[in-house]
Order: sequence, then C-alpha cells, then structure tokens
Amino acid sequence: MIAWLPRRRSTTSEFAREQNDTMVSAPYDSLCAYARETAQLASIDALLQWDDRTYLPPAAGDYRAEQIALLAKLIHQRRTDPRVADWLDAIESDTSHGSSSDDERATVRWIRREYTKQKKLPTGLVEELSRASVKGQQVWLEARQAQDFRRFQPALQHMVQLKQQEAAALGYDADPYDALLDDFEPFARTADVAATLEGLREELVRLVQELGGAPRQAPVEALRGHFPTSQQTQFGMAMAQAIGFGFDRGRLDVTAHPFCTTLGPNDCRITTRYDESFFPSAFYGILHEAGHGMYEQGLRPAQFGLPPGSAVSLGIHESQSRLWENQVGRGMPFWRFAFPHAQRYFAGQLSADIDTLYFAINHVRPSLIRVEADEVTYNLHIIIRFELERELLGGQLAVADLPEAWSAKYQHYLGVTPADDAEGVLQDIHWSAGLFGYFPTYSLGNLYAAQFFERAQQDLTGLDEQFSRGDFATLRVWLNRHIYQYGQCWMPSELVERATGHPLSHEPLIRYLRGKLGPLYGLTP
Amino acid sequence: MIAWLPRRRSTTSEFAREQNDTMVSAPYDSLCAYARETAQLASIDALLQWDDRTYLPPAAGDYRAEQIALLAKLIHQRRTDPRVADWLDAIESDTSHGSSSDDERATVRWIRREYTKQKKLPTGLVEELSRASVKGQQVWLEARQAQDFRRFQPALQHMVQLKQQEAAALGYDADPYDALLDDFEPFARTADVAATLEGLREELVRLVQELGGAPRQAPVEALRGHFPTSQQTQFGMAMAQAIGFGFDRGRLDVTAHPFCTTLGPNDCRITTRYDESFFPSAFYGILHEAGHGMYEQGLRPAQFGLPPGSAVSLGIHESQSRLWENQVGRGMPFWRFAFPHAQRYFAGQLSADIDTLYFAINHVRPSLIRVEADEVTYNLHIIIRFELERELLGGQLAVADLPEAWSAKYQHYLGVTPADDAEGVLQDIHWSAGLFGYFPTYSLGNLYAAQFFERAQQDLTGLDEQFSRGDFATLRVWLNRHIYQYGQCWMPSELVERATGHPLSHEPLIRYLRGKLGPLYGLTP
Repeated sequence: MIAWLPRRRSTTSEFAREQNDTMVSAPYDSLCAYARETAQLASIDALLQWDDRTYLPPAAGDYRAEQIALLAKLIHQRRTDPRVADWLDAIESDTSHGSSSDDERATVRWIRREYTKQKKLPTGLVEELSRASVKGQQVWLEARQAQDFRRFQPALQHMVQLKQQEAAALGYDADPYDALLDDFEPFARTADVAATLEGLREELVRLVQELGGAPRQAPVEALRGHFPTSQQTQFGMAMAQAIGFGFDRGRLDVTAHPFCTTLGPNDCRITTRYDESFFPSAFYGILHEAGHGMYEQGLRPAQFGLPPGSAVSLGIHESQSRLWENQVGRGMPFWRFAFPHAQRYFAGQLSADIDTLYFAINHVRPSLIRVEADEVTYNLHIIIRFELERELLGGQLAVADLPEAWSAKYQHYLGVTPADDAEGVLQDIHWSAGLFGYFPTYSLGNLYAAQFFERAQQDLTGLDEQFSRGDFATLRVWLNRHIYQYGQCWMPSELVERATGHPLSHEPLIRYLRGKLGPLYGLTP
Repeated sequence: MIAWLPRRRSTTSEFAREQNDTMVSAPYDSLCAYARETAQLASIDALLQWDDRTYLPPAAGDYRAEQIALLAKLIHQRRTDPRVADWLDAIESDTSHGSSSDDERATVRWIRREYTKQKKLPTGLVEELSRASVKGQQVWLEARQAQDFRRFQPALQHMVQLKQQEAAALGYDADPYDALLDDFEPFARTADVAATLEGLREELVRLVQELGGAPRQAPVEALRGHFPTSQQTQFGMAMAQAIGFGFDRGRLDVTAHPFCTTLGPNDCRITTRYDESFFPSAFYGILHEAGHGMYEQGLRPAQFGLPPGSAVSLGIHESQSRLWENQVGRGMPFWRFAFPHAQRYFAGQLSADIDTLYFAINHVRPSLIRVEADEVTYNLHIIIRFELERELLGGQLAVADLPEAWSAKYQHYLGVTPADDAEGVLQDIHWSAGLFGYFPTYSLGNLYAAQFFERAQQDLTGLDEQFSRGDFATLRVWLNRHIYQYGQCWMPSELVERATGHPLSHEPLIRYLRGKLGPLYGLTP
C-alpha cells in the first residue's frame, strides 16, 4: 500500500492480547477461542481463493498458490495442535459435559471428529494424495483434450488405490465408501444412501421415458435472444435480493465456474457466468448460489467459526441451493412475481409469454453432460457416478472397464451413449482430484430440498400467493427455524427427521416432479 | 467454497516441507527463507486491505479488521522471532560476510535494521500508539466534521507526546524528527531534508508570485464536460499500458482513496476514482499510481520479499509516480501521442484543442487543500506541514498554537488563509494516525523525480520524439537500470548520486517548472 497508512507498528498490541489469552482457564473457552482464530485463517484462505477465481492478474497464479499453501500449512498445524487434544480430553472427562448445551456438545463432537480424522491419516499418504490430485488433474485435462481415457487410466488407477488406502486408514464398518462419503456427508451410511438412490433411480427412469413420449414438449428455443450482461446482472441481483440474499453482507461477481464462498460472518460471496444469448443459464446460477448464500447468511454470526455456526453437510447445503433454484425458482408462483421484472430488464428481448417461459424453463431431455442436465435427468447422471465410484473402490469394477460401464449405464438409464470419452467418462474433474464420495451429495441435496419444501408447504398456508407477490419471508423463516440456525448441532439425518417428521425418502422429489411436469407435458395421471 | 474442491487434506505435504526446512544449514539461506515466508503473510495482508477498499460488503468491516489484526500479530511474531537475531549474529560474525554480494549485504543490513527498530520499542508504547492512532482518527473525523480543532487538540497533544517517546526510544543524534523520518525515508537526516526544502520553498514562493501576475492564465474550465466512467477507464488503462504498466501482472479498480499495492511478484494493483465532469482527475490518478506500479513491477521478482526486491523509500517511490504523472504526463510530447486517443475515447466531449489542453493541465493556482493542489504549489503545502510537525516534536510549537501557525504559513507562502479548521489544519488524516515524518517524502519524491528525469534527458537522446510516438521504453529501461533493479541495495541518497552524479538538490525541479511554465504563462525569462 503506497502513500497510505503504514501499519507495521500497530501489531504488538495484538501480540500482547495473545499473551493474555493464556489467562483464560476453562478448556472449553480456550478450545473455542483457538477454533475461532483458526477459522479466521480459513476465512482468509477463502478470500485468497475467491480472488484467485475473480480478479487475480493472469501472471499471478504461481505466487497465489504459494500463499494458499502457506495458509493451508498454518491451518493444518493448528488443527492438529496437541493443545486441541488436551482441551478435548479435559472437557470430555468432565462429568458435567453431558448436560451442557446443544452448542457446546456440537462444538466438542465436531472438533473431536476432525482432530481424530486428521490424526488417523499417515503423513506419507496425505502427501501422496496431494501429489496425485495435482498430477491427476493435469493428466485428466490432457486426456479430456485428446478424448482418450487410456491416457488418464494409470493416474486414475493410482488414485483409486490411494483412496482405498485412505478408507482403510480412516476405518469403516461395512463399506470402504463409508469412510470417504463421510468427508462430504458426515455420518451418512453408504447402504442408506444407496437404498434411497435406487428407489429414486427406478422412478426417474420411468418418468424420463414417460416425458420423452409425452404429447407436449418444452419450447426451449423460446428463451433465446440477446440479453446484455449488465441487464442480466441487474435482473439476477434484484431476484436474489427479493428471495432474501443480503447484498449488504454479500456480493455477486463473475467466474468461469460459479460458486458460493464465505469470508466472514457478514461476507458471503456468490458468482455466476453469463451467456448473452440465453438468460436462464446465469439466472438459475444466481438463484442456486443465492440459495447456498442464504444458508450461510442464516447461520448464527455469533457462532461463526465454530460448529454451531457452520453448515452441516454438502447435501444439506445443496438442498438450500436447489430449493430456491427449483422448488421456488422454476415454479409458476415465483414467475408471476418475476415475469414483469424480466420483461422490464430485458425490454424488447423477451418475446415469450409467461406460460411459454414456464414450460421452457421446465424442459426435460436426456443428455450426456451432467452440468447441462435438467432437474429430472440430473439425478441419473449422479446415480451413475455414485454406482461406478462405489464399485471402483470396492474392487468390483476395474478402472480399465470404466468407459464401457459408463456407456452401458447411460444407455440403460438415460437412453443415450457418449460418442467419445470427453462427453463420457472424462467430463468431470472430481475423480482426478481424488473426490470420491462427493457426487451423491448433489442428489441428496435434491432429495432434502423436495422433502423440506413439501413439509414447508404443509406447515405454511398461502406460500404460492406470497411468492406471486414477491414475498418469500415466511419460507425463509421456516428454513431458518428448521435448518439454518442449527448449524452442526444436528446431524443431517436428525435435521431432516426433526424438520419433516420422516427419514429421507425419494418420494417427495418424485411427487414434486410429477406434480409439476405431468400437467405441463400432458401426461395422463 | 461450496460445491467445489474441498482442500483440507492437501495441507500435510506443506507441513512436511516445513520440517525439511530445518535441514537447510547456512544461516543466510535460513534467514532468506524465513523472510520470504513472512513476506507471503504480508502480501496476504495486502490482499485483505485491497479487498477492504474495493469489494468488501458494507457489513463485513468488523470481521475484516479482526482478520487483519490476526495477520499483523503473526507477522510481528515472525519479525521479532529470536531465530532472526541468531541468524543475523551468525552471518555478521562470519568474516566472509564483508565480501559477499550487494544483494546479501543489503538483505542483512535491512533485516537487522528492522529487527533492531522493532526491539527498541517497548511493548507498552507500541500498544498505546496503536490505541491512540485508532482513537485519534475517530476524534479527528468528528472534529473535521465540526470544523473545530479544539475537539482534536487533546488527542493530538497525546499523540505528539507519544511520538516524542517513540523518538527517544529509537534514539537519534541531532533531532528527534530524525528517528521518525527514518521510518518513511530510511537513512535520511532531517537537517539535510530541511536545507533542501528551504531552498525549494524560497524558489517556489517567488515562482508562485510570478505566475499569479503572469500575462496568461490557464484555461482550466476548458476541460470540463461529460466523460462517462467506462470511457475514462478505457482511456486511462490504454495510457497506463502505453507507458509500461503491465496488466497481465496488475489491475485497475475503483476506490475512494486511490492507492497502489503489491500482492505478489506478479500482482500489483492500482486504483482510482472518477469524476464524470472532469477527466484529468482520474486520469492523472491512474498515471500516478501506474508510476508507483511500474517501480513495483520493475523490482526483481526473484528477490520478492527480500530487501533487494523491495522499494527503498517512500520518497523514491513517490518519485516514480510523479515522474510519469508530471514530467512525462503533463508534457507536450506525451500529449502529441495521447491527444488523438483522448479524442477517440471522449468522442464529442473533448472540445479543447491540444494547446488549450496542455495549458489547462498545467494550471497553477494557490489553494487551501493539499490533495487538490497543482504541481507547483503542492510542495508548499508539504513544506508547511514539515516545518510545523518538526516544531511540534521539538517542542518549539505548542499544539494549542497550531491553527494560528498553520494560517500564518499559508498566508506567508501561498497568500491564502483558511476560513475554518476543516479546510485548514484538520484537512489531513496523517497526524491523527501518528504519521509524523511522512509528509516530506511527498516533496522528496518531486525533487528526486525532477533530478532523475533531467539526467535521463541528458543520457538519452530523442526522448521527446519517442514520447510523441507513444514509445516510452527507453526511459523505462533507464529507470530500471538506475533505480528499479536495485531495490534496497543502495540507500536513497546513494541511489540519486549514482544515477545523476549529484546529491539531491532543489534546482532540477525549479529548472523543470520554470522551463515548462515560463513560456506557457508568458513570463519574461
């Protein structure tokens, strides 16, 4: 910072404060203070990564990687600091701990869980996983470019072996997949997820076939036109604000791969990308990320950096994005409110009437690429990946046989077959980066969303009428009461049972999809 | 970061690398590795501050302050780590150190210097200074709002006492001001600066009087119009790029108070603010910050984070911004190149011809507000502050008498008198923040710039012709050869003598100003 306020000397007072920290006596207070400071470093890391994806100059990538690696090292050192174990031991051996508050029990449970996981993994394996992830992504990129799975095969084989070792090191009861799934959907069991997704798959395959032969088809092309980025941004921000994303505590920026990230208790940032010929692309991206952001903004700020102030799982997180994107944002009540705004922002460009628009944004069509899939077929893309990665880890499927297995499942579930590996097995980065157990959280999100929304509709009267007036507060309050405020106080399975009265099921999603799409496509009930 | 690449586990490999670091044996290598890592933290702090001033959501300020304080603490801990002293002791006691490279000697000298300064200051004083700075700025803001110096007086009195204590703790030969000046212009002596600025003051007072009574006056109003921000941005970026600021390694953004900051060896960011009725305001801001940025971009990337890769002083830094803003950017050769571009970007808005524009951007007029002052009178604003703050610290001037002394000097040097404290003694934030010894670096920058540029014109033929073609490479190479590449290898006084053959003098600046302004204003030579 040139020519303004050098700060060097202002630091020692902070140093002095740190020394005073040692006077804090209760282990629980020490643990929380320490965790909050670690979270500050993690939130700084989030800024480095956000900036990396938004405004970083082209030549600055190498040094940014070093900055991120340094913070990662500092954060890791803190998370595995022996003092953490000492505090946890002291708290857990205190007989009064069992009767402490929900917040306190959640804090101890989750910090213990993370500490134990970090300690179980041998340093050599973690290093090798890290190297294999970097290398794997490079090789994957080249292989995808060349549309040639065989180039990627050795790297993937190596990665599968490493993930099997990781699962063994972490330990599991029934299925090695359990150990990996737990990183993304904590406390979930593979057998439960598999049973739910199998029920979902059967219903979806049937629905996709019915829709394919339906008397009416969605007029997707009706939404093509010229939609300047600046207008799309204004419309998107207006709608995100309307549903409840707080721009005083957040931002919207542009990136190649949209995401939502949190940099502090009042700093949640979402991103999108624009296609000037097709506005729904950026628009639903914004609603999706705003849904993620509203969950983050709904967590208790006073608990920021502690488990009660943290999102509980990727599946629950995804449910919050999907609920606003799909259950709300693809519904007619929402568009009764949004349509006049769209007409105003896209003056002269939006030729479709509201009914045409509503049908177009609810089109369903089997396709090859996951990230372009619609609300129905998307889950089949996920189920294919889940089934395949589970078999890879369990050893029932050889890496060499993956492309054939992939094509067979696409043909079987979706009736389409990739022409090459690039639009087939090489389309996703996840496996190359070692992300096994991540995919099912996308579909869990869709299932949670449908089940939450169905229950909210039962609990609350007049939601449709409220939406059509642009009033989303009642739904938001319901989500806050049943989900946001708890952070990690309840496990995902507890959260869904407490909120809806039932364990997770595929049925609400199917009811929702059939209820909306049947009439649109003219299916016989 | 939701729904993309969790990174938690990638950290242990970095941790392992750290453990290997202890195998590095040579103290000099250890010192450098440690300093580079500290610089990484400092560069992360720079990102936190850049973001704070550009894109931070309104409600996120409190947590950002905590993040910045945490990093400041970590950086301070590292800079005062006993290992730093151990390494320095080992290197300095090694008999071969005297014959080591310029880079090595500079590294040891500057790190020793910083370590010693940090250690000399008692923790209690640093804490009190930090508190007084925060409090002082708050009180200053209120006092300025109320246009009432008396509200600010106790806080300023307290700050002056603390700065006197700081000077005493740091130690000095002749003048307590020496100890504070050294923070901003390392190794400078107050007596030398005072002598130079006194010579400058006498010449400037005379010049301002002559220009005030000159036969012609600058047509400032000729540059008013409507200049949309987007056009100003494009024009400013095109000109910054033309003079040599690298946008592959930098950015331009918008802030309330323009600055330049460096976030890595290939990441230098500048900012500006726009006035749509008067384009020179943002434009010269951009040239100014681009000049700072080119110095930063000209430092050797391989030495990033070490003294040989760091700017040597605020005065030298300011010389690089001023040289491009004034010596180049307010010259006719530059405008022969830039004018057609301005006409194109501001199509239909720029009614002035090139001669009118040239005269208008070289207007000189005594005024009350430093940050709005022109190239000539600006230095008188600085000299007034320098003289006053030196007397405050030396005890020759009482804080209570400051407003009267301020007004007297403004009347004496510039012929104007503030109507109230807000446009007088309360206009700058510096003293409230404890920044004593900072002001003279602004004028030192102007003096260095004129002396460097005069010498470059002697060394290089055809600069004017090159500028008028938009070719600034020869000048940039000269600056790189004589200034950029050295970083902190030479003290500012050595740098100016080596580059120009003479110690710093006020004469080149006066020659430059009279040479340009005399003909424009029609002064008799």
